[in-house]
Amino acid sequence: MPEVINLQRRYLLAGTAATAVAAGTFVPGANLRASEGSDLPEYVNWKEPETLIIHSDNTLETKRSAFGTASITPEDRLYIRNNISPPPSSIVEDRDSWEVSIEGVAEPRTLTLAELKTMGIETVTMVLQCSGNGRAYFDHDPSGTQWQLGAAGNVMWTGVPLRSIVEALGGVAEGAEYVTGTGGEELPEGIDPLSILVERSVPLEAMEDILLAWDINGEPISLAHGGPLRMVVPGYTGVNNVKYIKKIAFTEEESPARIQQTRYRLMPVGEEGGPQWPSVWKMDVKSWITGPLDNRGAGPVLVTGVAFGGTTPVDSVEVSVDGGETWHQADFVGPDLGRFAWRPFVLAVDLEPGNYMLVSRATDSEGNSQPENFEPNQSGYSHNGWRAPGVEIAVS
Amino acid sequence: MPEVINLQRRYLLAGTAATAVAAGTFVPGANLRASEGSDLPEYVNWKEPETLIIHSDNTLETKRSAFGTASITPEDRLYIRNNISPPPSSIVEDRDSWEVSIEGVAEPRTLTLAELKTMGIETVTMVLQCSGNGRAYFDHDPSGTQWQLGAAGNVMWTGVPLRSIVEALGGVAEGAEYVTGTGGEELPEGIDPLSILVERSVPLEAMEDILLAWDINGEPISLAHGGPLRMVVPGYTGVNNVKYIKKIAFTEEESPARIQQTRYRLMPVGEEGGPQWPSVWKMDVKSWITGPLDNRGAGPVLVTGVAFGGTTPVDSVEVSVDGGETWHQADFVGPDLGRFAWRPFVLAVDLEPGNYMLVSRATDSEGNSQPENFEPNQSGYSHNGWRAPGVEIAVS
Repeated sequence: MPEVINLQRRYLLAGTAATAVAAGTFVPGANLRASEGSDLPEYVNWKEPETLIIHSDNTLETKRSAFGTASITPEDRLYIRNNISPPPSSIVEDRDSWEVSIEGVAEPRTLTLAELKTMGIETVTMVLQCSGNGRAYFDHDPSGTQWQLGAAGNVMWTGVPLRSIVEALGGVAEGAEYVTGTGGEELPEGIDPLSILVERSVPLEAMEDILLAWDINGEPISLAHGGPLRMVVPGYTGVNNVKYIKKIAFTEEESPARIQQTRYRLMPVGEEGGPQWPSVWKMDVKSWITGPLDNRGAGPVLVTGVAFGGTTPVDSVEVSVDGGETWHQADFVGPDLGRFAWRPFVLAVDLEPGNYMLVSRATDSEGNSQPENFEPNQSGYSHNGWRAPGVEIAVS
Repeated sequence: MPEVINLQRRYLLAGTAATAVAAGTFVPGANLRASEGSDLPEYVNWKEPETLIIHSDNTLETKRSAFGTASITPEDRLYIRNNISPPPSSIVEDRDSWEVSIEGVAEPRTLTLAELKTMGIETVTMVLQCSGNGRAYFDHDPSGTQWQLGAAGNVMWTGVPLRSIVEALGGVAEGAEYVTGTGGEELPEGIDPLSILVERSVPLEAMEDILLAWDINGEPISLAHGGPLRMVVPGYTGVNNVKYIKKIAFTEEESPARIQQTRYRLMPVGEEGGPQWPSVWKMDVKSWITGPLDNRGAGPVLVTGVAFGGTTPVDSVEVSVDGGETWHQADFVGPDLGRFAWRPFVLAVDLEPGNYMLVSRATDSEGNSQPENFEPNQSGYSHNGWRAPGVEIAVS
């Protein structure tokens, strides 16, 4: 077992009398690499190309190496997943005139972004993660973008709490059970709107945390990420955070849109999607290693990663360098940004020559830990197993 | 007095029975506007031009309107102040090979950035503020860049604690009283090096908080902001945070460089700089309004700003819309990022037609408040008076 270095103790530089031994055998996990495209699509040409994997024009993944130990994911490294193409960029040229209608309240009305900015302000940091993040780790080859870990980021949103708006409009109408948000994308002609409309419903209880956000990480939200106004639902997967939000309705039923009724559902392998299966809503506890990712020489190294709890605060994270045979408690790095945020973590180890499999396993404050393997579901959503994303490295 | 709206109470939209009355007269403060240049210098051409005031190639100020209510200042909006030109960009092409020598310890040695990354990791959020921020508000016309408020930002640095390095190298040499950092800029030929060398000394006690940082806001530090490696000294003014750090020495005396001996000193108006005057080191409690900045129609508005305590946590901030006649407690927005960070604040008011002067006054946890006016000093450093940065607006 490699020596675990306590960073609080005197650090042992070259010449240390470390009692490290090479790690033993372990089961190699998947170590997939998505193919890298060449150029970024125009609407995101301001992003850092070397930090992104281009799956398609509408699906860009943050490279694992680009996370580092950052408390915040910069917008120019943040993943992109659009269900349909973004609206024209003219909507972010006069941001304050953007309108959102609020329905299913005592006094329904349409509000401009300028008005929203007078109604309250909060900042929330949260993991934004695509429902299909980790799809590449399923063995049954679910169709869809083969995300590994990079359809996720930790971002700081600023906007007005939905509950403040609701309060100003006299409260939620009786019988409402869902917050239903509608995106402002332009729908193509000649196609059933419900088959393509981005309209998602989340349980009413989410209202307490929802923001209508205009800033991301201290800047106006880019068009690519849903500017001028996005409904952010902390703790819920990406699709529920509706971009270009143009309508919020408090409804008795879930949206009839296909994206709600049959897509983003957790069904057994082989089954068709449908409203009888659970919707992909809240995220579960998860973590992954962000470094080292490459073979290296023997000696001390900081094993780093990120961990989060979904809607529950992450409580602790363990790291193993031998594929889960032995575990060591890691330390968190940087500020606690609240229960929806991720926390970078670090474990100092001294690695002798040998082969290693680095894995991490997080536990939330309710005692839920990541499973070793995640039960498959037809569409490959919500993967949070700890083994598959393991990092194999050889130390020489 | 305008009605102050408690955001926790039911929000009053249009049609409110507000008892607002127009604000009375007040003493108008300085409301200076720096002239705007056209194009950004090449080494910072990745910054957002519309958020910056260009004073010169080496001095760029963040516009007041660009702060908003952000907890973090994005790097592409952050001010620039270079004492001499940055080194060639080749130094950020192979970051991990950057070397820093550590002297004045039991076992002096040179460390690469790759080695530093194995020695420990921390993240600190801190206000980075030029010593001369606010110089434009002095009446005695001190020479130098006429900064208003925007030679400041709140940034998140990640790197290795200096104390961890010192511990690994056997501790600080006996008799050392200062941490002296030397920048890696190339010095022009034919000129006394000490007249231009960027080398700053801070008291040894600062060591506890110093980081050798490689990341800013989750990304490798740009050349313009001191990458690949910067010595960050939380709570101390910008000049003490030495860019391209190539040497750190624990010394008995302060650096003999002019930037230490005669510049960045607090002396009475009319006096020459010299070591007999206090060095510009720790920052004091400060705040300013970030919005609204323009005339507007009557109605509800959120008055926003940022406040920080320097090396002491900011405790509270009051806002006045009548130039300091009456004060109201503002609320903080977003996460507490630690004692070196700023906190955005908000006060909801309902403004009737009239003229207003918006000012803010912060108090730190030791009870120190911003003074109404700040005593002048020859070079115009460290301004933290609350009156001069007031914002005049007319509400119609």
